Amino acid sequence: MTAELTPAQLIEKHRPTLDQALDAIRSRAYWSPHPEHPKAYGEGGSLSAADGQAAFDALRGARFELDQPGSDGWTATELSPYGLELGIEYPHADVDALLPAMRTGMAAWREAGPEARAAVCLEILARISARTHEFAHAVMHTSGQAFMMAFQAGGPHAQDRGMEAVAYAYEEQTRTPRTADWSKPQGKRDPLELRKEFTAVPRGISLLVGCNTFPTWNGYPGLFASLATGNAVLVKPHPRAVLPLALTVRIAREVLAEAGFDANLVALAAEREGEGIAKVLAQRPEVRIIDYTGSTAFGDWLESHAPQAQVFTEKAGVNTVVIDSTDDYKGMLSNLAFSLSLYSGQMCTTPQNLLIPRDGITTDAGRKTYDEVVTDLAAAVDGLLGDDARANALLGAIVNPQVKERVEAAAGLGEVALASRTITNPDFPGATVRTPVIVKLDGAKPDAEAAYLTEHFGPVSFAVAVDSAADGVDLLRRTVRDRGAMTVGAYTTSPEVESLVEEACLEECAQLSLNLTGGVYVNQTAAFSDFHGSGGNPSANAALCDGAFVASRFRTVEVRKPV
Amino acid sequence: MTAELTPAQLIEKHRPTLDQALDAIRSRAYWSPHPEHPKAYGEGGSLSAADGQAAFDALRGARFELDQPGSDGWTATELSPYGLELGIEYPHADVDALLPAMRTGMAAWREAGPEARAAVCLEILARISARTHEFAHAVMHTSGQAFMMAFQAGGPHAQDRGMEAVAYAYEEQTRTPRTADWSKPQGKRDPLELRKEFTAVPRGISLLVGCNTFPTWNGYPGLFASLATGNAVLVKPHPRAVLPLALTVRIAREVLAEAGFDANLVALAAEREGEGIAKVLAQRPEVRIIDYTGSTAFGDWLESHAPQAQVFTEKAGVNTVVIDSTDDYKGMLSNLAFSLSLYSGQMCTTPQNLLIPRDGITTDAGRKTYDEVVTDLAAAVDGLLGDDARANALLGAIVNPQVKERVEAAAGLGEVALASRTITNPDFPGATVRTPVIVKLDGAKPDAEAAYLTEHFGPVSFAVAVDSAADGVDLLRRTVRDRGAMTVGAYTTSPEVESLVEEACLEECAQLSLNLTGGVYVNQTAAFSDFHGSGGNPSANAALCDGAFVASRFRTVEVRKPV
Repeated sequence: MTAELTPAQLIEKHRPTLDQALDAIRSRAYWSPHPEHPKAYGEGGSLSAADGQAAFDALRGARFELDQPGSDGWTATELSPYGLELGIEYPHADVDALLPAMRTGMAAWREAGPEARAAVCLEILARISARTHEFAHAVMHTSGQAFMMAFQAGGPHAQDRGMEAVAYAYEEQTRTPRTADWSKPQGKRDPLELRKEFTAVPRGISLLVGCNTFPTWNGYPGLFASLATGNAVLVKPHPRAVLPLALTVRIAREVLAEAGFDANLVALAAEREGEGIAKVLAQRPEVRIIDYTGSTAFGDWLESHAPQAQVFTEKAGVNTVVIDSTDDYKGMLSNLAFSLSLYSGQMCTTPQNLLIPRDGITTDAGRKTYDEVVTDLAAAVDGLLGDDARANALLGAIVNPQVKERVEAAAGLGEVALASRTITNPDFPGATVRTPVIVKLDGAKPDAEAAYLTEHFGPVSFAVAVDSAADGVDLLRRTVRDRGAMTVGAYTTSPEVESLVEEACLEECAQLSLNLTGGVYVNQTAAFSDFHGSGGNPSANAALCDGAFVASRFRTVEVRKPV
Repeated sequence: MTAELTPAQLIEKHRPTLDQALDAIRSRAYWSPHPEHPKAYGEGGSLSAADGQAAFDALRGARFELDQPGSDGWTATELSPYGLELGIEYPHADVDALLPAMRTGMAAWREAGPEARAAVCLEILARISARTHEFAHAVMHTSGQAFMMAFQAGGPHAQDRGMEAVAYAYEEQTRTPRTADWSKPQGKRDPLELRKEFTAVPRGISLLVGCNTFPTWNGYPGLFASLATGNAVLVKPHPRAVLPLALTVRIAREVLAEAGFDANLVALAAEREGEGIAKVLAQRPEVRIIDYTGSTAFGDWLESHAPQAQVFTEKAGVNTVVIDSTDDYKGMLSNLAFSLSLYSGQMCTTPQNLLIPRDGITTDAGRKTYDEVVTDLAAAVDGLLGDDARANALLGAIVNPQVKERVEAAAGLGEVALASRTITNPDFPGATVRTPVIVKLDGAKPDAEAAYLTEHFGPVSFAVAVDSAADGVDLLRRTVRDRGAMTVGAYTTSPEVESLVEEACLEECAQLSLNLTGGVYVNQTAAFSDFHGSGGNPSANAALCDGAFVASRFRTVEVRKPV
């Protein structure tokens, strides 16, 4: 095979970016090579807004050709949460033919070494980045995210997380030198001398089990971490969110082939309706790594039923905010209102339980009772979403009927402080749009526990009355320990309460955001700086991204011989 | 508590050594701070040979006091393979009292940070090192290793592996800075600014399940990796090899207390005869990390029955040497003879299957038939062990009756090329000493497979006739894939065969030693330079020592707040 792009050319092109990424993960200062603003695209080879829209439209109602081996028909399982007809058919894989084909190119991919693999991965990301406008529509019409969020979270932020994984993978593989000369003194005799060669070798085939809500953002870290460490990657998208990952696979295959590697190092396993192929794939002996985002039930199943594989999971959790006191009451309310509303609360990081002392809190606007805080927060959400156009742009669409059912059922769990409203999306009349519901619960009543100690994924929050801030911290601890949490927030002006919350998060292993009142939200993390999840509580067994996320995706083989 | 040694003092004392260890794991050049020669000890506070012997003798026939909470009686389960009466009683732990007590000091240990923890670990190792002569007797009379091997492998080499783990742990925890200032530009508006604090937090209690043959060498990496990453460590020794780890625990507790930390961060769980306490401990929710060396059956059980824990295992494998050709026939034979004899083949790294082409091999001494190679190897072993004193010094003692039974049964598996002999140890008439047995098997006969594809732990080797070197490499691949291997060796002067073997080891993930004919043996690895095991084949799920061995023993918790 003649390479159109040599690995050396790709290294020359991408090494400066890789070095910046390596600096960023060490300093954890702000950095991103991927612009967030839609207007930044359209020049230098990237698709403009109009071109991205046209590219997306051209995909609809057609077969998505991938030219991968072992296809035995076509499958179409997507339904846009906006009601848009997608009608895209994907090749359905015969895994008995596909898996062996994926192994064919692994030796050459391993031989290429960590730097060439990183450069190929960065080229894939660069081409994805150039098509961010196209991806934005693909993410929007599979996840139900509003356009701007689909653009940013599904585009540059996802690409950042992918690049972060590449940087970690590169660093981890190069901690051991390629060769070493070893000379052990033997007193008066000649020293013992060996020449040692160290090679990072892959585990095997890595399986990515994608999710419906963040197909690229949650998918890229595992995909790129595994590819950069020499593994082949089989992408099994969520049946309702195939397109963003199918586009990704197609681009990856193009780049691999152009660089002289086997395109089958990355392949798609789109499934038929109700096929449940993830379970089958997860137990194949060729599959040695699994990345998964989704329900706790299936994540727990994977963790205990695929012993041949390294399993990285992100599951459900009960995210909690402790509200003790604030010197910016308005800022706190508007910050929380935004966090609860963004993408209709359908983020794994959206707060669910707001723990508020029943005797109220101290603020810069005076003492506020529990009822006042809840009422003011409800008003803040109402204000934020008062204009339908703005509400649609923030809420997006409800991703599936189960979320809608949970919103409707929430009203029956306690006193409703803020009722969920239905909003019409004039551009997409078929979209199901709901504003958040806030329900009051008493933390001291045992029968309320079943509600607030369960994840209600979607725009459902509980204002839980607690006896005191300290009592709230106890509940926070119990919640994180028993149910897990991707995020914890706290508002306090008291150093004592701050210490209590911090100690709880350190001991129960949860990521904490303190006193956010401006433009940073508890549910958002920035690649290269923030860890997404801790990997140390039941909501996830891994964090994005750290050494542990990449270190076990490869092994180091040593060959030693006398000099 | 007043610290007799402040963490700052310990850091000042040990930081230069830590830096050297960090350099060594990066360069993988030869380095060790622990002298191998017994005569290097006895000055500067370390025990001389006589003092070490006296210290060991003083332990015999007495209670081993540990002053740890939750003890409910005493237990004595050791039997020296040399027949020496030990009679040492250890406190038996009530784990329901001990486990909670072990958690008490964890917050302070976490707060101390990675550098102080590393310094405390190095102080523990330094005190162990000073008592190497005492440990040598303890290892000898529990494992059955001959004195010199017990001294070196149980002393400096084990201490090296422990220090290597400390270095990896320190490096991994400090890849993320303690704090970071994050400032994200917002066009014309003020940037978003956050102050972030990152803390390495422990998983919980780490369980070390020790082994009979290398209590310190195989135990120290997990013990020190977990302690250095902030966890408490519960040491559950093999019931026949308690003393080396009990001494270790006692020293660790002393150092922790002197440095102002809770001694209960390290504790001993000696069990009663037949109690099988490892299973119970492994499933306790407090136990979040497990290190294990031993049988495949229990290792596999741990990997799938302790989902709450990170499980690191070293299990059984079938180590293989491919013999194709050599330009130093004599060197090859003597090197292999030593490898088969050392500690009666009771190393997880001892070769078992020697794959030899049935039409012979090319050597500097002319063409040698399969039969000649086997006969010459048998003669080399005989020559090496011809003198009883030398044989005893090399073989040590058979560790348990099962090994003796396997040696005796081996003669029934095929044509015996070298029969095992019984040797008397004049110093310890109770010792069971056996020379290696070498059995000829035909690799083409399916009924021989059951023998050579099973691990026969002990001084049992098979000279397996194969059709060609390529056929041997195929068998090597199959062996590693299905049974695992801690080590692979090969002798060849052919670049083609060398490539075949290398490719097999890279693809099946096994550590390869090529053409060893001098003073380095396939069954020995050096800390800071060689990886012990690969973690990528069925013989072990982890390697000593790499990033993956430490990275998941802690998690990073982030606290972020507006500037």
